[in-house]
Amino acid sequence: MIISPRIGLDIGGTKIEGIALGPTGEITVRKVVATVPGPEAVLASTAELVAALAAEAGHPVAAFAGVGIGIPGQVDRAGGIVRNAYNMGLSTLALADELSARVGIPVSLDNDVTAAAIGAAYIMQLDGTVAYLNLGTGLAAGITIDGAPIRGTDGYAGEIGHLAIDPRQRPCPCGQFGCLETVASGSALKTHWPAGGDHPGRSIIAAIAAGDTEAELALEYLIDGAAAAIRVLGLTVNPGAVVIGGGLRLLGDPLFDGIREKLAGWADASEFIAELRLPERVVLLPDGSPAAAIGAAIAVND
Amino acid sequence: MIISPRIGLDIGGTKIEGIALGPTGEITVRKVVATVPGPEAVLASTAELVAALAAEAGHPVAAFAGVGIGIPGQVDRAGGIVRNAYNMGLSTLALADELSARVGIPVSLDNDVTAAAIGAAYIMQLDGTVAYLNLGTGLAAGITIDGAPIRGTDGYAGEIGHLAIDPRQRPCPCGQFGCLETVASGSALKTHWPAGGDHPGRSIIAAIAAGDTEAELALEYLIDGAAAAIRVLGLTVNPGAVVIGGGLRLLGDPLFDGIREKLAGWADASEFIAELRLPERVVLLPDGSPAAAIGAAIAVND
Ligand SMILES: [Zn+2]
Ligand SMILES: [Zn+2]
Repeated sequence: MIISPRIGLDIGGTKIEGIALGPTGEITVRKVVATVPGPEAVLASTAELVAALAAEAGHPVAAFAGVGIGIPGQVDRAGGIVRNAYNMGLSTLALADELSARVGIPVSLDNDVTAAAIGAAYIMQLDGTVAYLNLGTGLAAGITIDGAPIRGTDGYAGEIGHLAIDPRQRPCPCGQFGCLETVASGSALKTHWPAGGDHPGRSIIAAIAAGDTEAELALEYLIDGAAAAIRVLGLTVNPGAVVIGGGLRLLGDPLFDGIREKLAGWADASEFIAELRLPERVVLLPDGSPAAAIGAAIAVND
Repeated sequence: MIISPRIGLDIGGTKIEGIALGPTGEITVRKVVATVPGPEAVLASTAELVAALAAEAGHPVAAFAGVGIGIPGQVDRAGGIVRNAYNMGLSTLALADELSARVGIPVSLDNDVTAAAIGAAYIMQLDGTVAYLNLGTGLAAGITIDGAPIRGTDGYAGEIGHLAIDPRQRPCPCGQFGCLETVASGSALKTHWPAGGDHPGRSIIAAIAAGDTEAELALEYLIDGAAAAIRVLGLTVNPGAVVIGGGLRLLGDPLFDGIREKLAGWADASEFIAELRLPERVVLLPDGSPAAAIGAAIAVND
């Protein structure tokens, strides 16, 4: 694949990950900076990061076709506007136009999970219908067909974290009860295992090994909800691959094996579910892949 | 839109509906024949129907680009094979090749609900992301983007009738409990309201008006499950329109108003769900539209 060189940024609550893609689609530069909240700080730091990526790639910024950005919150891709990205202190920001004015090349925005879905399909060379399940602070999914994302009418495609189907019926900040996000997310881990502190994903496996039954139950909920999310994706779009990524991907095999076991149990109980071949189609995103930054770059000008 | 003239067939358990589409995409002929089960009977009657449609359109069969067929069961579109269409006495039939040999033009197969989804978007001129919810003997959905269907890896996209999320946890023939199909389908109506006989949809509204509380409860389950299916579609692909069709579409306003009320209640309870604008995006397929036959014809050679 030959593409125009482009830059991709994944703006998160704690860090901004940036990459430059060269003409054969390979990552030529990768840089991470800390996120400083607020509109001016986000604009200044992203403009600086774009300049630094270009400089390190050995080209002027103008040599790149554009900057693609993946960002959480409510993203109006057509208008280039992000709303309600409270983690980074943004209520409404015309990020595409404002950053474009500073760097001199086009800027396009995508929801961070949609960008990661595009990036995951690209990195893993997955064609056809592919689902990407992001287990981060929240739970959300992205769906791609031959690499192109389904964004939906208002950019809400893949927001299955607020599918209220968990039998535990825990209250969700969205106003519903039993959202998948209330059991299968980083915020759910914190609720169910307060001893884990702010980053429960980093210590939960060790805590379980040490006999912490509250941690064990929190992981069980996570696995159950993640598998339920995958079953929803399976029955809705029948993907050939389901890629698991997001911050909780770091849990590795205990999470992955747990999800596959749960899906295998459901397949054993139903020939129909077995036809979806979910246990064998689930894969983990390669560790440390900057999927959202790559996906945002790929989606520039598409 | 200018297309090559083509023929579309919707093969169901009781009848086969056939249409011919002219070069501007309008229906030029429409004919319905009774289904006679078994491979030879299905082949003979469909070949005869194709010939009759062409004759009535005033053209030789060879003047048509092809025949598109929508059929229930497990459809291998690439191979042109239908499996497990027990309603019409077919276990495995290479329907595309066999019929093509008889009529002399290409034949392509689609799942009947996928075909209806293509047809619904076409008839109602709906662009962007559109979901079609089929409430027939079973429950299934189809998703189109600018008229093109998402079929999934093995043709199972849209099989949300077997999403096991209904809190009543009724057993489903698929082996799971609480499938949406166990509450929101014609077969569920029969189970919950045996007094309604073989075609409960035809008399349930009158029975409720006459004070039949069992019928009322059966309709309540139907509305609840259909609304839950629409919420799944809303959160997964964020459609700009959700079209309700299938045999139970004949219930009309009591079904339609009930679904919209249920969706409005969920939107009132959650700002996030409200953003999906489901109550105002739900529409009924125009009464009597041969959506699956039209969609199957549209999908010929695509
Ligand atoms: Zn929620
Ligand atoms: Zn089922």
